[in-house]
Formats: sequence, structure tokens, C-alpha cells
Amino acid sequence: MLLKFTKMHGLGNDFMVIDAITQRAPKLRTQDIRKLADRHFGIGFDQLLIVEPPQHADMDFRYRIFNADGSEVENCGNGARCFARFVVDKKLTHKQQIHVETQGGPLVLQLTSEGLVSVDMGAPRLLPSEIPFVAPAPAKEYLVEEAGKNYPLGVVSMGNPHAVLCVDSVADAPVAQVGALLTQHARFPQGVNVGFMECVSRQEIRLRVFERGVGETLACGTGACAAVVSGQVRGLLDSQVRVHLPGGSLEIQWAGEGHPVIMTGPAVRVFEGQIFL
Amino acid sequence: MLLKFTKMHGLGNDFMVIDAITQRAPKLRTQDIRKLADRHFGIGFDQLLIVEPPQHADMDFRYRIFNADGSEVENCGNGARCFARFVVDKKLTHKQQIHVETQGGPLVLQLTSEGLVSVDMGAPRLLPSEIPFVAPAPAKEYLVEEAGKNYPLGVVSMGNPHAVLCVDSVADAPVAQVGALLTQHARFPQGVNVGFMECVSRQEIRLRVFERGVGETLACGTGACAAVVSGQVRGLLDSQVRVHLPGGSLEIQWAGEGHPVIMTGPAVRVFEGQIFL
Repeated sequence: MLLKFTKMHGLGNDFMVIDAITQRAPKLRTQDIRKLADRHFGIGFDQLLIVEPPQHADMDFRYRIFNADGSEVENCGNGARCFARFVVDKKLTHKQQIHVETQGGPLVLQLTSEGLVSVDMGAPRLLPSEIPFVAPAPAKEYLVEEAGKNYPLGVVSMGNPHAVLCVDSVADAPVAQVGALLTQHARFPQGVNVGFMECVSRQEIRLRVFERGVGETLACGTGACAAVVSGQVRGLLDSQVRVHLPGGSLEIQWAGEGHPVIMTGPAVRVFEGQIFL
Repeated sequence: MLLKFTKMHGLGNDFMVIDAITQRAPKLRTQDIRKLADRHFGIGFDQLLIVEPPQHADMDFRYRIFNADGSEVENCGNGARCFARFVVDKKLTHKQQIHVETQGGPLVLQLTSEGLVSVDMGAPRLLPSEIPFVAPAPAKEYLVEEAGKNYPLGVVSMGNPHAVLCVDSVADAPVAQVGALLTQHARFPQGVNVGFMECVSRQEIRLRVFERGVGETLACGTGACAAVVSGQVRGLLDSQVRVHLPGGSLEIQWAGEGHPVIMTGPAVRVFEGQIFL
């Protein structure tokens, strides 16, 4: 059968997007997804995003996200932005505020007048046990020792664990080396994503993230949120911050403890495709 | 403007193919090609292939190939097969034998009854000065010393220099390590591609190739030709040999010195695309 799809990216995190509302989409098995994800033999993508009708009447859509290895994942900030642009560009909705069901629970997405998309990323968690992180008591910053050196880290969960290290310059930061040292540190029982943050001003940072199990990536949405939360907790940043990642820039807003983090950024349609399956 | 394209691959060496005959194709600058070649922000490919009308009346087509960095290259065996499949699938010709102008000179491509494509890769060159390779006299095999070890190498030019080393098992061959040692060896003034060949029988080999300036690749067409030529010269192989590369298999024929090497293999259409430029 002929399957139509759209290739999109959010800060270089790229997606094959399938409209399973106006076309009958095939049931894709793990091995099908792996084949499609291959960048030489297939279409090539970080994640597959399938747009479906909602299961509950008060929601607008449902979407599912699969990694390139075929495993289903709960959510992804870059994917959520691509989803919102897709349903608006394809005229599947005329709303600017979209309520969507995901594996990770309901999401509210907002299109801005500049064509960007805002995503409510939920409230950060700061208690060590919630990260999880081994510490005798909560603090704004923790000294973590590794190979005879002490690293002052902010520690935040955005649904996944993040450690944030301040550096003078992200360009010179030893991301691969220190990232690999800290990501599996014994004080993070489930591992940790490691952010290297350069504060340009109270409203602007540069950030590189070493993702747990992956290595350095172009643009980690939850890493951007965690860095801004940690920067605010440490008194370094204001409540609205522009975050420059290698793949592009995001705007992060956080009104303080108990409030959700709002991430605003771009989503780009690259091309339209058709493939026989 | 809207540009239609086809994504194809030959043994995993992948191409964006543009029909510049039935559509008016834009003039692509180096920076445009680099953007399109990007696997996260663009379409993603090893090479761009542009199909054009011939400049000479006795030819059927002309094609041009550009690397992902925007530089134009002379020829590519995997690209030639994809070109032939493309013009037949798109009904741009009804011929089974296609005469085509390339930057590297005219080529004759033949579609087989099984849907494969045969390419005349030209005659191999075996004289040391033609490789170029530093040796006192021509031989079937040369001992090349590096880091205290002697490597018995067959040496062949297929328009580019190749060294071929016999191994017991390609699965265990130290391709990255020995490839890096030999590719820039002083006896190859222009560097060399290094093939690791496991002879399964006189009609079948397994091959991994460390490409000069690149590292190990999925499927090096000239490397497959060079391995079979060197295997015949050394008395190990017959005139028709099946070559198993990591990306798939090729059939290589060579009737001996002075004759051209004929390479036969698959070319696959993956999907059709449309992009706004």
C-alpha cells in the first residue's frame, strides 16, 4: 500500500509523521519501524510520530511516538511541537490551542502568532528522592565527586533525571569526557542526563547536553527546562530564559516551584513523501 | 519552487535523484546541497544525482553526481546503477542498454532480466606507477611493512588506488586498525583504499573496505572490483565472483588483463518526495 508521510524536525531532532486520520495507515511492526528509520536503506528519523483520532471526546487528537529501534516512548518536547505544526498545516484542526492524548498523559499545545509552538512540560521535581539522587538533604547545588574532582551540580527531574553543571564556555566544555563520567555516577541510581550551561545573562544561556545512554545530542528539550529551573533555583537566571542549543534555540518560562515549565520553540516541515509498504 | 525527487540506494549507498528532464530543476549551490544532504535538517543522502538530457546526439542521458559536501564527483558504481533504474522506472527511456555521459567519461549501463544493473567499470591497472605504488618491479603480491609487521597486499587501480589483504574471516578482521595504518602508508603517495577479503570459494568472497579519507563503508563498488581482480591475479578466484559486502552483494566479472571489469548489482527506489526550495 502507498503511505503518505511528512518529514519534520524540531531543532534537528527529526521525525517521520504519519496522518492516520485522513488515510488508513498500516499497522507497523518493530521491524518495519527499524527499516523505515534506517538513514541509508529507509527514510531515516530519530522518531516516528503517528497522529490518530482521540479516544476521549474532550480531546482533539491522540499521538504515539516510537524510537528508531521500534520501542514506544511516552513523550518528547520536540515531537510535540512537530505534531502541533503538522495538524495545523494539514488543516486537521483550526484551533490554536490543541489538547492531545499521549502515552505520558494529556498535553496542551499552543501555537504562537510567530508560528512557534508552546508546550507545557509539567512541574519540575527537586527533591533528591524524586530524581532519584543520593543526598542527605535537599540543596540548591550538590558537590559530586568523581575521579578526585568535585563537580557542583544542580539536580532536577523533568520526568527524567538531569544534572546541570555551570561552565565558563560551552564551546570548550569537556562534554563527552565529563558527561560520560557523571551520567552513570553511583549517586544517580537510574543514571542522569548531564547539562553544561554557560550563563550569558540572566535571560540567556548556552547549553550542551550529554544524554543518558546516547551521548551529546543537538537539542534536548527536557535538558533546556532542567537547566533553566536549576539556574533559577541557584539565583542565576530570571523566569524567562532563551536557551541556545547546538540545534537551535528555545524559550523557557518557569514561574517557580509548583508551576509548570513552558517550552516554546520552532517546528519545521522539511518535505512530503510517499512510500510503498 | 516545488522540487520532486526520488530517494534510492545501491547496497546502502544512498542518493537523492532529481529528474531535470521532465521538470525544471533549480540551480543548486554548494550550500543548498549541504543543507539537503543533512540527515536531521534536510533529506539526507551520501550523494545527489541529477539526470539531464545528453549533450551529444549519440548518448541517451547525462548525469552529474555531487557529494554531501557539495563537491562534484566523476563517477560512482552504486550511483550509476541507481541512475539506470531511475530512468527506466520513470519511463524516461525504454532501452535496456543505456549510454550516458558522466564527468568521468561515457558509460554503458545494462539492465538485466532480474532488474539488476550491470556497469562497465573499465580495465584495472596493475603497474605500480599507475596505482601509484612504490615498488621496484611489478608483482602479484607485495610485502608492505608497517609497525614491525609485514602485510602481503595485492595492489590494483580502478581509477582509484586499492590494496587487498586476504584474511581468514572478515567478521574478525581488524578493519579500522589495520585500515588506518595502511591507508596513508608512505608507499602509496596518494593514499589507498584497503580491502579485507575472505575467500569462501573460487566464485565467492566476503569483503570489507576501509575507504581512503572516510573509514569503513557499507559497499565500495571499486573495492569489490579491485578485490576480484587481485584474487584472480593471485590465482585464488575464477572470472566470475559473488562479492558479499556489509550493505549487500555484487557480481563481478573480469576476463583478464586488458578487459574491463563488469559489476552487476541492485538499485532500490525507497520513496518519492516533494520539497519546497
